[in-house]
Amino acid sequence: MVHTFKPSLYHTTIGGHEPVLEIADGDTVATSTVDARGSDSSGEQVTDPGNPQTGPFAVEDAAPGDVLAVRFDRLAPNRPRGWTSSRLAPFVVDAYRAASDFPPDTGTVEWIVDMGSRTARPAEPSEGLAGLVLPIDPMVGCFGVAPPGGQAINTGTSGSYGGNMDYRGFREGTTVYLPVFADGALFSLGDGHAVQGDGEIAGTGIEISFDVRFTVTLIKGREISWPRGEDATHVFTVGNARPLDEGLRIATTEMVCWLRESGMDERSVHLLMGQTVEYAVGNMFDPAYTMVCRMSKAVLSGIGVETGM
Amino acid sequence: MVHTFKPSLYHTTIGGHEPVLEIADGDTVATSTVDARGSDSSGEQVTDPGNPQTGPFAVEDAAPGDVLAVRFDRLAPNRPRGWTSSRLAPFVVDAYRAASDFPPDTGTVEWIVDMGSRTARPAEPSEGLAGLVLPIDPMVGCFGVAPPGGQAINTGTSGSYGGNMDYRGFREGTTVYLPVFADGALFSLGDGHAVQGDGEIAGTGIEISFDVRFTVTLIKGREISWPRGEDATHVFTVGNARPLDEGLRIATTEMVCWLRESGMDERSVHLLMGQTVEYAVGNMFDPAYTMVCRMSKAVLSGIGVETGM
Amino acid sequence: MVHTFKPSLYHTTIGGHEPVLEIADGDTVATSTVDARGSDSSGEQVTDPGNPQTGPFAVEDAAPGDVLAVRFDRLAPNRPRGWTSSRLAPFVVDAYRAASDFPPDTGTVEWIVDMGSRTARPAEPSEGLAGLVLPIDPMVGCFGVAPPGGQAINTGTSGSYGGNMDYRGFREGTTVYLPVFADGALFSLGDGHAVQGDGEIAGTGIEISFDVRFTVTLIKGREISWPRGEDATHVFTVGNARPLDEGLRIATTEMVCWLRESGMDERSVHLLMGQTVEYAVGNMFDPAYTMVCRMSKAVLSGIGVETGM
Amino acid sequence: MVHTFKPSLYHTTIGGHEPVLEIADGDTVATSTVDARGSDSSGEQVTDPGNPQTGPFAVEDAAPGDVLAVRFDRLAPNRPRGWTSSRLAPFVVDAYRAASDFPPDTGTVEWIVDMGSRTARPAEPSEGLAGLVLPIDPMVGCFGVAPPGGQAINTGTSGSYGGNMDYRGFREGTTVYLPVFADGALFSLGDGHAVQGDGEIAGTGIEISFDVRFTVTLIKGREISWPRGEDATHVFTVGNARPLDEGLRIATTEMVCWLRESGMDERSVHLLMGQTVEYAVGNMFDPAYTMVCRMSKAVLSGIGVETGM
Repeated sequence: MVHTFKPSLYHTTIGGHEPVLEIADGDTVATSTVDARGSDSSGEQVTDPGNPQTGPFAVEDAAPGDVLAVRFDRLAPNRPRGWTSSRLAPFVVDAYRAASDFPPDTGTVEWIVDMGSRTARPAEPSEGLAGLVLPIDPMVGCFGVAPPGGQAINTGTSGSYGGNMDYRGFREGTTVYLPVFADGALFSLGDGHAVQGDGEIAGTGIEISFDVRFTVTLIKGREISWPRGEDATHVFTVGNARPLDEGLRIATTEMVCWLRESGMDERSVHLLMGQTVEYAVGNMFDPAYTMVCRMSKAVLSGIGVETGM
Repeated sequence: MVHTFKPSLYHTTIGGHEPVLEIADGDTVATSTVDARGSDSSGEQVTDPGNPQTGPFAVEDAAPGDVLAVRFDRLAPNRPRGWTSSRLAPFVVDAYRAASDFPPDTGTVEWIVDMGSRTARPAEPSEGLAGLVLPIDPMVGCFGVAPPGGQAINTGTSGSYGGNMDYRGFREGTTVYLPVFADGALFSLGDGHAVQGDGEIAGTGIEISFDVRFTVTLIKGREISWPRGEDATHVFTVGNARPLDEGLRIATTEMVCWLRESGMDERSVHLLMGQTVEYAVGNMFDPAYTMVCRMSKAVLSGIGVETGM
Repeated sequence: MVHTFKPSLYHTTIGGHEPVLEIADGDTVATSTVDARGSDSSGEQVTDPGNPQTGPFAVEDAAPGDVLAVRFDRLAPNRPRGWTSSRLAPFVVDAYRAASDFPPDTGTVEWIVDMGSRTARPAEPSEGLAGLVLPIDPMVGCFGVAPPGGQAINTGTSGSYGGNMDYRGFREGTTVYLPVFADGALFSLGDGHAVQGDGEIAGTGIEISFDVRFTVTLIKGREISWPRGEDATHVFTVGNARPLDEGLRIATTEMVCWLRESGMDERSVHLLMGQTVEYAVGNMFDPAYTMVCRMSKAVLSGIGVETGM
Repeated sequence: MVHTFKPSLYHTTIGGHEPVLEIADGDTVATSTVDARGSDSSGEQVTDPGNPQTGPFAVEDAAPGDVLAVRFDRLAPNRPRGWTSSRLAPFVVDAYRAASDFPPDTGTVEWIVDMGSRTARPAEPSEGLAGLVLPIDPMVGCFGVAPPGGQAINTGTSGSYGGNMDYRGFREGTTVYLPVFADGALFSLGDGHAVQGDGEIAGTGIEISFDVRFTVTLIKGREISWPRGEDATHVFTVGNARPLDEGLRIATTEMVCWLRESGMDERSVHLLMGQTVEYAVGNMFDPAYTMVCRMSKAVLSGIGVETGM
């Protein structure tokens, strides 16, 4: 079943909020998200800033110990203008430089996002950026399910429940798997980016409102500890922590678990991952950073490993 | 001029060793490297283990404050067998797991490396890895110039002078740029891998001896702080430190500098990097980890930025 | 006014729970806390484990932008037995050791806590610990106010609002200053330890229920960013983050701010802190670690600096 | 035997330099050190800056696998003026603040060091520091033995061999134990501070030249992995790494080893350390930070544990 849902209320925490809609295993939701400052497709600010979330959507029968699969069927910027911050985060450059040469924060910069040509360009480019045209690659920065233990956590950080991970791989066609910690799972999403560099090192992608469409699948009785996902070429796991190393450890451990669950013996998992693992950097801006551990589906299917969740 | 050099002496520190050969700006060297345990193309151990280096090669006229460019013209495994460790490093998985379920170290595992088909496969695959055939992607794990201040540093770590970075991008066709800290630069290299996963999280790639061929270019009076490089599609910078965050900070700062040197204004650099930067993980095994900051040449040339060193 | 409050409900998140009691500026509360597993003075488990909190107590007129001062007037173990875990946390030892020699978790160990002699000793000491008698030094591991933005955060971590900081300095006689983020401040506390090593590296102190007595003072219109405190000899600030470095950065910055607010010029603050600062380690066990930055009151009063909040 | 040695040559690396003097087990050396910039007791700069070392001193019969004990018998500033930097290191405050409010580097500040009253005070105090008089607490910032594997490492960092650790506990009366990696051990020392805050967060203590006197004891066939030490009240171990957590892990693991070597069973070591361990922060300024793990001698002797090396 396809639900069309027009949001009127948004949350800047991910937690046990009253569901806006109850959906069932296999259902699809067509809805929209506002940008990180709470502005909608008309450019009007309709809610408080801070990655406001559309939802939560309760999934019938979802219970702690299940997994919720969410496929991003469509992630489409729905207005012609996005914005970014005007400088890199001070903590992604070295501290001595930050203390001396760092440019002042001059507010935000506007970008023109053209869905026809699927490109983005600065609205008023500095001389140095004259002619810059970037292909868009829309992705959703922040989504998740209600965290464990009745917590409500702000949408500026992340954890085992998801959150503000800002990984470029969360694009159209990707499926994510989230551990369910609360009855109904309570999935929400927001913070769309038309384009974003690795690490979200400016603290923003090109922030813009989205039309989104996603499909949920409930996987009963399959426990996972951290978010997982898959796209056309890879399966992946996500670790959210500081420093980056700890995120990498979490993601790597979750991938070891996934391959073991798929029937590989421990020694084979170690040998294979050692020579074929890939890493990608999500957010290096929030209180928790995000690292992604990726394994090639071609390599796995070449040795008969089936990672299906 | 092309020098053919057959090594007879290797070093497990990078420092002020007596040069084995003096070469000039523009020269090419054809030589070989032993594997990480000191075994040569015949499989015989000819020197002490620990990423032994071939060299150092002194470059005529190179002096502190210059940059040495080294192009890896050829990196070719020169024997039919390589080896890896048998398990992941304990510190790439989470500590509770490491404390409980971690498999014992059972020594090394042999891999068959076939230069005809350019593939690698376990010599005696476990059942779980039956049928595993990986395309090879030869790269050099450890190289560098003499470090600053008269230091001699072991080949199991890295710094501003290079060292054991284990980045998969150090493959045939890549050019690296190294800051010169000592007269003659004193370049050396070793630790070839037929294949390696990101992070070298098993502590080894498929370790093997190489035939190598490289060409040096001396860039007088161009100061850089950390290694830089370029391949067909990207320019990149390298940060070697713990934690990974700090490596990312170093690499990002060095890229900011490079783009600024290329004539971009600071604000443009921040805006561009924020939305287009890419990161790759080198070694997450040594006392210093390695992070690589990459920028697309296509994007840069699209706005007229010329990063040539 | 002194309120005597007997708790019947506990929370394992710190957030916007319904206050159990409304108190006023200057009031004192005499109450009790259960241990980390939810057991009370009789040793009976009366609530779920996980550092359950007594409270929250709402302070009349407290509003975002104020500071709540809480003096720990009395922190007294109220039963004769406490317990600890049986081993160090795997992540406080190096990973290779954790992977090989680490002892299995054999559950908890009982300690006899004698309030007469103010000592603790293992109930059934191993041969190696025969004769061990430790002076007790009771402290409260976890307390705080409702976090910003309507969050509810579990009592196994910490942040700007307080939380599970496990700093030995939170003992009788210490006053803590907490930023107020919600109307009424909503202070709660729990997780008493009869004794604890720095870092809470076993994941527990000697866990025990407490009789507690504390007095609140509301400081209107004085903004702080992170917890502060003072004891007989020092003022201190608290940073909760990973890695420890980041906690140290936060605590150091908060102390710079405090001294600046006390009228010192920035250069004097830098010179003084550089040569006299002291650091202490709170918890190195949770998702956020705790570092404490301390400055001697004698040194400060020697130059006429008055840090009163 | 007491050797009086007047240095004429200094090194800014710790490595395999030609010994300046050969001494024997039990010998005492009376010598002097220059300050971090290479200035001697007359205030004249006599060598290059960068923590220049006096030595190395070769100890007869010392060989890899031994331990060298060095007791600091006397550490005495030998001139009336020291200096510090003028500001905190940017990376000990949070990055956003560093990027905006950080004071410029205005060079060094002079301090008057009075050995009669054993005090230090700014030579030209800012108004904010008028009246500041600090008790001196002289300590040696940088010392060590030749590192493993023929390395030579600059005196601005540290490792298993010692180096620039800047721990306040390296004062008169303290004995340090260093692993021997090279024949003769090759001990050197320098970088005296009249006073220093924890962390050396300004990048300097009050830097000054010293008269020093130390006594060496050679402990044959006793292997340790990292520096250890003892003072009147505690035994301690030292971990040098980034981030601080990793230094803490190293130091904690070395203490576990020490207690195990002293005959304690593993479970007793875990239980005891969990409730009584103390940590101190050395340098948080260098490429490697320093954490110190301390255990009370009174507690250890109370259960009959003899930690003598």
